Amino acid sequence: MSEQLEGNCLVAQSGGPTSVINASLSGVVAEALNHECIEEIYGGLNGVLGILNEQLIDLAAESQQNIRGLRYTPGAALGTCRYKLKRQTDFDRVLEVFEAHNIRYFFYAGGNDSQDTADKISKLAQERGYALRVIGIPKTIDNDLVTTDHTPGYGSVIKYIATTVKEIAADNAAMGQHDLVQIIEVMGRSAGWIAAGAALAKRRDEPSAAPHLIYLPEVAFSAEKFISDVQHVLQKEKYCVVVVGEGLVDADGNYVSTDSATADAFGHSQLGGAGEYLRALAEESLQVKARSVKLGMAQRAAVHCSSQADNDEAYLAGQAAVEAAVEGHTDKMVTLLRGEGDSYTCETGLADLSEIANGVKKLPESWINEDGVSMNYNFYKYALPLIQGEVKVPYENGVPALVQLKMEKVDRKLGAHIFE
Amino acid sequence: MSEQLEGNCLVAQSGGPTSVINASLSGVVAEALNHECIEEIYGGLNGVLGILNEQLIDLAAESQQNIRGLRYTPGAALGTCRYKLKRQTDFDRVLEVFEAHNIRYFFYAGGNDSQDTADKISKLAQERGYALRVIGIPKTIDNDLVTTDHTPGYGSVIKYIATTVKEIAADNAAMGQHDLVQIIEVMGRSAGWIAAGAALAKRRDEPSAAPHLIYLPEVAFSAEKFISDVQHVLQKEKYCVVVVGEGLVDADGNYVSTDSATADAFGHSQLGGAGEYLRALAEESLQVKARSVKLGMAQRAAVHCSSQADNDEAYLAGQAAVEAAVEGHTDKMVTLLRGEGDSYTCETGLADLSEIANGVKKLPESWINEDGVSMNYNFYKYALPLIQGEVKVPYENGVPALVQLKMEKVDRKLGAHIFE
Repeated sequence: MSEQLEGNCLVAQSGGPTSVINASLSGVVAEALNHECIEEIYGGLNGVLGILNEQLIDLAAESQQNIRGLRYTPGAALGTCRYKLKRQTDFDRVLEVFEAHNIRYFFYAGGNDSQDTADKISKLAQERGYALRVIGIPKTIDNDLVTTDHTPGYGSVIKYIATTVKEIAADNAAMGQHDLVQIIEVMGRSAGWIAAGAALAKRRDEPSAAPHLIYLPEVAFSAEKFISDVQHVLQKEKYCVVVVGEGLVDADGNYVSTDSATADAFGHSQLGGAGEYLRALAEESLQVKARSVKLGMAQRAAVHCSSQADNDEAYLAGQAAVEAAVEGHTDKMVTLLRGEGDSYTCETGLADLSEIANGVKKLPESWINEDGVSMNYNFYKYALPLIQGEVKVPYENGVPALVQLKMEKVDRKLGAHIFE
Repeated sequence: MSEQLEGNCLVAQSGGPTSVINASLSGVVAEALNHECIEEIYGGLNGVLGILNEQLIDLAAESQQNIRGLRYTPGAALGTCRYKLKRQTDFDRVLEVFEAHNIRYFFYAGGNDSQDTADKISKLAQERGYALRVIGIPKTIDNDLVTTDHTPGYGSVIKYIATTVKEIAADNAAMGQHDLVQIIEVMGRSAGWIAAGAALAKRRDEPSAAPHLIYLPEVAFSAEKFISDVQHVLQKEKYCVVVVGEGLVDADGNYVSTDSATADAFGHSQLGGAGEYLRALAEESLQVKARSVKLGMAQRAAVHCSSQADNDEAYLAGQAAVEAAVEGHTDKMVTLLRGEGDSYTCETGLADLSEIANGVKKLPESWINEDGVSMNYNFYKYALPLIQGEVKVPYENGVPALVQLKMEKVDRKLGAHIFE
């Protein structure tokens, strides 16, 4: 396992950005500088697309301020993609570029699809006898990767949502009218991890506090039950705050939405509209005033309200990826492991990329209360540690000071860019 | 002007909450404690409704922590209302309640409609020879009150929006695809003050940064121009961030919206839908991927991203209201006056309530660039000081620790609550 491998490293980012994906990048760069076997530190632009197009940048040329500032910068500083490597020529091209730049360490931050890509690249390198160590870095607000207790990005998105729900509830509670229904639509394509996180807006001993109702993709939606649920809340409270995951489906598996669905490159439907649908349903069925909020991409970019625990773990995952590769591991993804004790601790581990690629971690049904619209103790115990601490984002001119990399291009003078 | 008036004071909140309306309440209570002529410090629940219903609470009974915590609590801690006093019996009832509780100082935080109500109460008291000092406290995210340089609440809403726009832009810039159109809908019923504030997401020397296009209610909307504007941006940039005020209207004065409009108690239309309309328009006309965000009530409640300058001024306005009343002023609203110097300073002044009630401050057309979709130097100079500084909100369990008042009821043992 521990044979010394000398060469350059390449790090790239894939899939939807999170507010901490750049913290992992920062961790990779900081740790790579510690190891002499890693000569150059390259970044690939826009995930695998940048490798195919041979668009590499020199991360060692970036200033210390920039590498530190990445910890407070949302988006994906290297750019990301949803491109799926399919053709053999694509994979051949990746290895060709790796060889041309003597890339011996490849770190890929992403979700299931990205880890699948990393796995295939790793397997091909092994087949061809090209010495390459591939370590994936978990990244997704969706929290749906198996083998890891949770994923970097999740803690921050639910901290932002819980904060927003609590603030909106304070506003709604103040309105002098009765029967205000507030619908807050959050992300979550196929799982309710994100919507469930809204529960953290209230303590478990505050049953009358918002969110009053959480609609999860895991629980088949019924319009009749929704109307009855809202009525029930409004009999006791002046207002009703509803959180809904965008991936809400009815008993037949149809999306609850006013929009028509289209599919992206991975075959996922692009959702949106569940919130507006519920708003109209409440207003028309109950003759009440209903309002909606759609947080959209704001939620995964909200570094100004991100979790320090999440940020620290994202950075740690980046460091751990480099350490593992230098130690000789390959074809693995870094995982986050929760300690057994009563107080929360988190360490990193490793899992096979193929295991991540083929699994989807579901929100346990046993964490949902019998009412189908609230979370129980097990969810609180799981999620509460993930939102602790507030990242101290530097501000400039009244808004967060975000980093833009200098992006010094790496050139092997081959006239690359064949995919442009 | 300076005759001593002894009695109790009553403070109430009206209209839509802001993230700093409770900072003004905190200022009133803190300052009232300094003056011996003010005996009891009462709060009226839900604005004038609470006065009509004789629902008063004892603010002097609240803990110091609560009064301090109001500075970090969105919503309106006393509750608010949109009830408009119309009938003579309503006004008579207000004075009856004031007399019963020896209310000699009345502070009302609100926008135009609320200041109009305060003015009418004040005039009636004068007519009836009831010694009462009425001072309004400016409060509205809409920034549309005349005679004041700006209104408490405005700085915080635009700080949150500019922050959100900058963060979303970092996310969108990272996406590996071209031609992503992002629509962000913000509040602003009849003026573009709030939408204009999104401009602060970029410095004026960053023309290619987001927001790329801002659609204001002041500029008649044309679908053709919108499509051409977006195309123009996408020829130069990979993505296009559009900010739109909910009150966008076309050349005929019709709201640009997918929703049907309904009117509230003051005859204002309840808007929403401009963002979704533009999203669909971009997607269908340009065959591009378009996404929308609707910040809704999140924007006026986002104390976690509020402006320290705004918070300080809101507090100051509350203090100034009490000082003015004690000095003998009445039938006035506190105004914020900007100093003449190069560096920003702000003092309070006073203006006639009737002047506020009957005016609406428009966004100067000369602050909008000729392209109709961006703001010029004058707007930056005006707005930038208002978003400076970050309020240090205390957190508990990973979310902002908001205050809930103890609400000790004030009772004159009359079996009040006649309006329930």
